[in-house]
Amino acid sequence: MPRVPVPPDVDAFLARPNPAVVATLRRDGSPHTAATWYDWVDGRVLLNMAASRRRLQNMRRDPRVSLTALDVESWYRQVTLMGRIVAIEDDPDLAGIDRLAVRYTGRPHRDRNRESVSAWLEPDRWFGWSGSGPWP
Amino acid sequence: MPRVPVPPDVDAFLARPNPAVVATLRRDGSPHTAATWYDWVDGRVLLNMAASRRRLQNMRRDPRVSLTALDVESWYRQVTLMGRIVAIEDDPDLAGIDRLAVRYTGRPHRDRNRESVSAWLEPDRWFGWSGSGPWP
Repeated sequence: MPRVPVPPDVDAFLARPNPAVVATLRRDGSPHTAATWYDWVDGRVLLNMAASRRRLQNMRRDPRVSLTALDVESWYRQVTLMGRIVAIEDDPDLAGIDRLAVRYTGRPHRDRNRESVSAWLEPDRWFGWSGSGPWP
Repeated sequence: MPRVPVPPDVDAFLARPNPAVVATLRRDGSPHTAATWYDWVDGRVLLNMAASRRRLQNMRRDPRVSLTALDVESWYRQVTLMGRIVAIEDDPDLAGIDRLAVRYTGRPHRDRNRESVSAWLEPDRWFGWSGSGPWP
């Protein structure tokens, strides 16, 4: 599997507001998956969760994660990033979740009482796939 | 997290040809994710892969997997199934991949020379989420 940095086509793909699924590790080492918003910022992935989310507990215990982004126009194209959560930051002014909400919906997040946490994923490997073969 | 069986709404959701991402475990225990077709058959998930796929090697080594299906009409609704691969079967006549290809594209799989393998996921826990809260 190729190492980062990703090539320009993949960088442009990740910059779009694609549907994505992030996998974390449960206490017993089994995988947990959930759909997620993300942003792609200078080669890192911004995630944001309500503080109560199980995947946040998982990331605090074991930082190893994998994220698959599906092309918002056709999910037969996908990019996966594997790596580690390198920072977890409280988001008291909701700047992190608003950044994602604006990216995906055009508006700040509706829930202003949310206890919000940002996490940064630093990928070390990636792969892309489109239809029946590697992409790009 | 609720145990199976899933309620009727989730059963109906899973019966649709939704985009999905499956997480498996790499040799070092870190997660691997990839987009996948699936079918929902009597409470089990049918997956099918080319024999060379990395996630198949992962499933053979450690059967623990998690699958998130995104609503084909709006990915803000999702269902995740966590469980184990309970059977891995060669698919020499391509019945498994054709079942998925017909479900998703209306036609048998294009590549008739594929070395194809089916895997059955038996879930033990699930969760559903829609927009900002649990579903259903």
